Amino acid sequence: MAGKNAFYAQSGGPTAVINASACGVLQTARQHSDEINKLYAGRDGIIGALTEDLIDTSIESDAAIAALKTTPGAAFGSCRYKLASIYEHRAQYERLIEVFQAHDIGFFFYNGGGDSQDTAYKVSQIGAELDYPIVCVGIPKTIDNDLPITDCSPGFGSAAKYLATCIRETALDVSSVSRTSTKVFALEVMGRHAGWLTAACALATKQEGGAPHILLLPEIAFDEGRFLAKVEQATERYGHCVIAVSEGIKGPDREFLSAGLKDAFGHAQLGGVAPIITNLVGEKLGYKCHWAVADYLQRSARHIASETDVQQAYEVGRAAVKFAIAGKNAVMPAIRRLSDSPYRWDIIEVPLAKVANQEKLLPPEFISADGFGITAAARRYLAPLIAGEAYPPFKDGLPDYVRLQNVPTPKKLVKKFAV
Amino acid sequence: MAGKNAFYAQSGGPTAVINASACGVLQTARQHSDEINKLYAGRDGIIGALTEDLIDTSIESDAAIAALKTTPGAAFGSCRYKLASIYEHRAQYERLIEVFQAHDIGFFFYNGGGDSQDTAYKVSQIGAELDYPIVCVGIPKTIDNDLPITDCSPGFGSAAKYLATCIRETALDVSSVSRTSTKVFALEVMGRHAGWLTAACALATKQEGGAPHILLLPEIAFDEGRFLAKVEQATERYGHCVIAVSEGIKGPDREFLSAGLKDAFGHAQLGGVAPIITNLVGEKLGYKCHWAVADYLQRSARHIASETDVQQAYEVGRAAVKFAIAGKNAVMPAIRRLSDSPYRWDIIEVPLAKVANQEKLLPPEFISADGFGITAAARRYLAPLIAGEAYPPFKDGLPDYVRLQNVPTPKKLVKKFAV
Repeated sequence: MAGKNAFYAQSGGPTAVINASACGVLQTARQHSDEINKLYAGRDGIIGALTEDLIDTSIESDAAIAALKTTPGAAFGSCRYKLASIYEHRAQYERLIEVFQAHDIGFFFYNGGGDSQDTAYKVSQIGAELDYPIVCVGIPKTIDNDLPITDCSPGFGSAAKYLATCIRETALDVSSVSRTSTKVFALEVMGRHAGWLTAACALATKQEGGAPHILLLPEIAFDEGRFLAKVEQATERYGHCVIAVSEGIKGPDREFLSAGLKDAFGHAQLGGVAPIITNLVGEKLGYKCHWAVADYLQRSARHIASETDVQQAYEVGRAAVKFAIAGKNAVMPAIRRLSDSPYRWDIIEVPLAKVANQEKLLPPEFISADGFGITAAARRYLAPLIAGEAYPPFKDGLPDYVRLQNVPTPKKLVKKFAV
Repeated sequence: MAGKNAFYAQSGGPTAVINASACGVLQTARQHSDEINKLYAGRDGIIGALTEDLIDTSIESDAAIAALKTTPGAAFGSCRYKLASIYEHRAQYERLIEVFQAHDIGFFFYNGGGDSQDTAYKVSQIGAELDYPIVCVGIPKTIDNDLPITDCSPGFGSAAKYLATCIRETALDVSSVSRTSTKVFALEVMGRHAGWLTAACALATKQEGGAPHILLLPEIAFDEGRFLAKVEQATERYGHCVIAVSEGIKGPDREFLSAGLKDAFGHAQLGGVAPIITNLVGEKLGYKCHWAVADYLQRSARHIASETDVQQAYEVGRAAVKFAIAGKNAVMPAIRRLSDSPYRWDIIEVPLAKVANQEKLLPPEFISADGFGITAAARRYLAPLIAGEAYPPFKDGLPDYVRLQNVPTPKKLVKKFAV
């Protein structure tokens, strides 16, 4: 593939550090200009490839590329777009080949979570199935931390650090006012199926009885009676109760708790399980409650990113380029933990076939016996992932994030492709 | 009053920097031990005085006191508790005098917003009305920035900085995914009557067309049709639309928009106007929406406090002690702006009678003609208040906040007082 061009794209929900991976890819590709000629970025993920909307990254300055390391969001745009298999939708793959051929692309990098690794895996098969030679490498990313094999997923550590900080800070607030005002506070956390982010909130605990007092994990069926008893116990004992609740908690019927929420007009409401459980507490126990929904704040909070996370995001981007240059097709760089304390890690390669469409839930040994907390083993696992501060530059009181020029490469194909 | 003891207490909702004011008070009192003997802190605000629950601050180390400058929440506990007037509820004031006399208290510091300045003012009258000599000084604090006379209120700048950062960060996220996913994002902001915090979100705008595209201010009646037209225009023009919405927006009937929200069981729901307006957008315009409610996160986010705000919070605490030593009763230190750029300010004294129970709304000249944004004058006012970063120390990946010992002083009175 030496001398061919490369394609890089970002997929799924952005994180605070997905652009640090982009930075790793772009900087490393620039250092290997003998092996990789131009690096094109797909605008809005794989859609950029299908629509021949290729961003010419060569016109971006080294300074702008370096600034990606401290900028949240997905600098080239992202998408939620799942490719069907080659057998189901051959035309999509033929289109990809047309675009790749037209722009002499021999390397394909796809940066995302489980669905995106599936896309990367499918694209990696076009060499064998459709006789177009390409080296295809996935780059892990997800705040949900649910990718298998890799010890953790870039993006998770920073979201975890942000959420644990929120819990620690709001707990000081609630405990200050609990005598005459709010006694119960719930923070709603992302992670529809896997409770990693909710579990990470427990890192805020400094001493016995510290917040959060209750985690509501999606791995554990929500039991109203046990939950209320626990809230009452914590509030009576500590004067207040702080709850981290996963957006994905389900009742005993396996339905999302948030499914039944209606607005004043009887219309289904978008999300919001924190208001549901605090309403329940208010009605049944009479405590004044407050709640917050962090939503996108938690996946874009680059201002309080984990240094470990930023480094790992950058290094998987670097490793992806090195794997590609070495001709390794259909692989993903994964993080391997060598020790907890001091925390040591390196990067290994894993086959995309093993990571695509797999979801790693919180293992039972990480969940406390009552289901409302985490174990010491979970703490040992989580603690190093939020370590270190990697502040972005600030200007006029706010983080100074880069916006790339994102200039499109002239199209070479006449045919359009509708996505 | 020289040689008398002092009482300090915190009131209302905490901020990221109310403890910086406490730090200013405690450090300055320690430097003036000839004039002020012991400094007692009231546990949970004025309630600590009424119930004779006085915290002996003299046992806290200088290091612990210094760490208050970087710790959010209200270190001595706060309360929402409004004193009636001396004429309505004389027994309360007689009780205060009993407690003050028993502990030889000649100085009274009360740190809070408009209601708290009212309490401070009422207490200041007991010298004249009930013949108990006391010097009473209010210390300003509120994230809402609605105290009159003072150019701004400590606590506001840090919440403003946090919210503008959230808007800037989530805008990068939403603009990344808007092609195939979320196009409209709304962040709900505190400030039930005054739109200062919502206005501050506009500081996130870097260039024409940048987020936030729409502010929904409580000073402007919500007009569904005009709002939807604006959302559609922004989304069509920029591909996405970011909204900062005040929790306190009201419809043309002057009812809070959030008043009608019901959960699945038909029960009134606690807050949440962001889901209401995004639901409306989804239904009427068909755009996919997301929303966040920052709630207590915005008033406790010490991890991204404004350096200007921390300094001002500290200095009003210092000034309060100096005013008290000078025998100035019934006053509050206020911030006076000397110039916008470079930003210069000093501290002046204002009579409590003029600040108690007043609410400063966003002036019309700060609101753009269409009501959905702010003017250049507002930007000039707001910009310096979020300037500078004043990071707390971190340990194990999280902000390392101090917890004081808060040891109670032995009670001297037999009589209890129920609040």
